[in-house]
Amino acid sequence: MIILGIDPGTATTGYGIIKKQGQNFNFIECGVISTSSKEDIQYRLKTIYSNLREIIAAYEPQCMAVEKIYFNKNVTTGITESQARGVVLLATADFKIPIYEYTPQQIKNAVTGYGEASKKQVQNMVKVLLNLTKIPKPDDAADALAVALCCGFRSTLNKKDSTA
Amino acid sequence: MIILGIDPGTATTGYGIIKKQGQNFNFIECGVISTSSKEDIQYRLKTIYSNLREIIAAYEPQCMAVEKIYFNKNVTTGITESQARGVVLLATADFKIPIYEYTPQQIKNAVTGYGEASKKQVQNMVKVLLNLTKIPKPDDAADALAVALCCGFRSTLNKKDSTA
Repeated sequence: MIILGIDPGTATTGYGIIKKQGQNFNFIECGVISTSSKEDIQYRLKTIYSNLREIIAAYEPQCMAVEKIYFNKNVTTGITESQARGVVLLATADFKIPIYEYTPQQIKNAVTGYGEASKKQVQNMVKVLLNLTKIPKPDDAADALAVALCCGFRSTLNKKDSTA
Repeated sequence: MIILGIDPGTATTGYGIIKKQGQNFNFIECGVISTSSKEDIQYRLKTIYSNLREIIAAYEPQCMAVEKIYFNKNVTTGITESQARGVVLLATADFKIPIYEYTPQQIKNAVTGYGEASKKQVQNMVKVLLNLTKIPKPDDAADALAVALCCGFRSTLNKKDSTA
């Protein structure tokens, strides 16, 4: 099963693609979709939408996993992140793949076994679990792989996770 | 000049279309795009996106106006509203129309002359300014017309309003 993990953002949307075979995970691809703050918002969202559609068409994932958004940090970031997230969710519609959502704690717990793990600990486990020689860069790509791994660990893809 | 006002939401996105001629405003159309909570989020967003694109193609507005989002009330509503907003902004990209954003105070002030006006006062002024026989229904459609009127009053369409 091929799983696409996404870390949405207006400036940088991270994506990570893995393949689950039995209890093993194989790295397929990761990267970021970047947009310029010099562009108007609708064209930045269009870049995210179009690029993500191309990624889905190319890798044909069976599902997409996204982190749940929390607003306890920065409200402005939360608004722009949610806007980007809307476009990310929309991008899956024509491909009819299900969306799964996980809290930061669920992701940390799935990947490291510890819900309060640091960002660095999560990234290191992403490297180990995917048998990589180094931690994927940039951070948003590594974060997207962590979401994909969480989805892989929690599947059977329990329908109760699908709350997007 | 034809102005499209939008009040974004996942369940109901209101739209209002007006024509500004000199200092007068003419009502063209208003309504809502509704989606069912029984559908998965990506298909609800797709409904908003597709319908709004059809509206833009049909009425050919020269600009789109949207209310700025604030998060002091309900964070969960704010997230889903921002997701819908992302899709609304995206819908304009292919039509290359500019987006203008206004705070609730700017809208109330433009339409009623008073930044702390009630919802009812705003709706009543929408009726008066557009020479309607009654207040447009539902509320989201009336709110969308208010945003469009705000944009009309503030134009010349000052580029400084364009902060989406």
